[in-house]
Amino acid sequence: MKVGFIGFGEVASTLSQGLMENGADVYTCILGRGTRTKEMAKKTKVKLYNSYRMLAERSDILISSVVPSNAIDVAEMVGKYSKGIYVDMNNVSPKTVRKTLGMIKNGKTVDAAIIGSVLKNGINVKVIASGAFAEAFAELEDYGMNITVVGDENGQASGIKLLRSAYTKGVSALLFESIYHAYKMGIDKEVLNYISETEGQDFTDSSISRIISAAFHAERRSEEMIEVVEMLSEKQNPIMSKATAEFFRNLSKNIKRHENRPDNYIEVFNLLSED
Amino acid sequence: MKVGFIGFGEVASTLSQGLMENGADVYTCILGRGTRTKEMAKKTKVKLYNSYRMLAERSDILISSVVPSNAIDVAEMVGKYSKGIYVDMNNVSPKTVRKTLGMIKNGKTVDAAIIGSVLKNGINVKVIASGAFAEAFAELEDYGMNITVVGDENGQASGIKLLRSAYTKGVSALLFESIYHAYKMGIDKEVLNYISETEGQDFTDSSISRIISAAFHAERRSEEMIEVVEMLSEKQNPIMSKATAEFFRNLSKNIKRHENRPDNYIEVFNLLSED
Repeated sequence: MKVGFIGFGEVASTLSQGLMENGADVYTCILGRGTRTKEMAKKTKVKLYNSYRMLAERSDILISSVVPSNAIDVAEMVGKYSKGIYVDMNNVSPKTVRKTLGMIKNGKTVDAAIIGSVLKNGINVKVIASGAFAEAFAELEDYGMNITVVGDENGQASGIKLLRSAYTKGVSALLFESIYHAYKMGIDKEVLNYISETEGQDFTDSSISRIISAAFHAERRSEEMIEVVEMLSEKQNPIMSKATAEFFRNLSKNIKRHENRPDNYIEVFNLLSED
Repeated sequence: MKVGFIGFGEVASTLSQGLMENGADVYTCILGRGTRTKEMAKKTKVKLYNSYRMLAERSDILISSVVPSNAIDVAEMVGKYSKGIYVDMNNVSPKTVRKTLGMIKNGKTVDAAIIGSVLKNGINVKVIASGAFAEAFAELEDYGMNITVVGDENGQASGIKLLRSAYTKGVSALLFESIYHAYKMGIDKEVLNYISETEGQDFTDSSISRIISAAFHAERRSEEMIEVVEMLSEKQNPIMSKATAEFFRNLSKNIKRHENRPDNYIEVFNLLSED
């Protein structure tokens, strides 16, 4: 089994390592990529092709894992060369996925999305997939991956992922806003405690972790929320998701730069600039 | 122990019944109240005083449980007569609670808030209390109530309750918005399922119940969110809570009238008017 990756960041390198350990041949192409990507590819000891055309022609399964804004461009670049199955694994909206996969001339396409943390779970991270060739892509389970087929249309997997994001990012924003106020009133522990009564035992710990992550990843979340709002706007005026996007945009502006993940939310709140 | 209630709705009648069963003398005054309140008082077999002055003068503990917009007025009415402990159990902001309790001349005041459903839990419903006389109010535990003292300042208990509301109502709005979109895409079950992976086993059931409740109580929630936004606005621009308030205001306008609580969220979504 020859698996090719276009783009070689955290996701591609983690999956590559697992796939190779399970007997797959893994390739990428680092032509025109940044230093960090090149180093990551060398470190992972993945095989290299000298052109994207070769990568596309010779992969049984070709996985696109680039920054969301490049998803369409790379599909356009390799669209007429891709001989195997083309998998878009980028964090984009169903509309963008359909446009992206529309560039693949042989029509063997899959919409795939990662649910959860690839850093924490490695090759076992849950991947959901939809589209005409999702079942064929799921054969990578024989090489260690954890793939669930959720439908046969492109856009379903990315839709599930983005709607899940709309919820989880919104919850983080809600928590941040209310616990920040509670902290200012000196009742943060009590508020967490009384919400736990209905939300379950783990609520306090997971909430603290969400508040810290919200601050640490505010800028990236603010960007991701743009795709969510775009998607939800197709069928309604997404009041909550627009607010979530605005919340993270504001937070990324108002929080002082910090290199390391804070240890607790008091540290986070102290990083906020007061007007 | 003589316990008096000003206002005699669902909360007062439920607590009265439990208090009487546990040996307390319970009084109210129905002067100038609506038919429903009068019937409720008769049905509960609570004792009646002919004036609010008598009620205030003779109660060891006097509990105000009226509509939020009347909280200040009733405190003003009985403020100079209240001889025992005056408890504000209304769903109002800390600022309003402090103003309300400031009307009580003897200064024996308590800020109390109900956490959870009085209908489901009866006399055992969790009540949190703060203020100088919260410990004295907590003696009603001997008469069946479930009271936790959370601080010695007025405003703390109502603050905890409202911040909890900011979170739980926001979550309902987020769920409604994202699952509505998922339903339109035909992936509602999958989205709930994949959110459950991180949110825990009960997530799907509790989410369905939240979506249904959101629709059934949209108007009341929209009113309650006004107090939440007012409170949060004191220390920040509450983007998420403002959105939650707007969400419920919109929902209450766009949902067709329905007498009974819907059984499932598909029924709810079908009640939405499409523009």
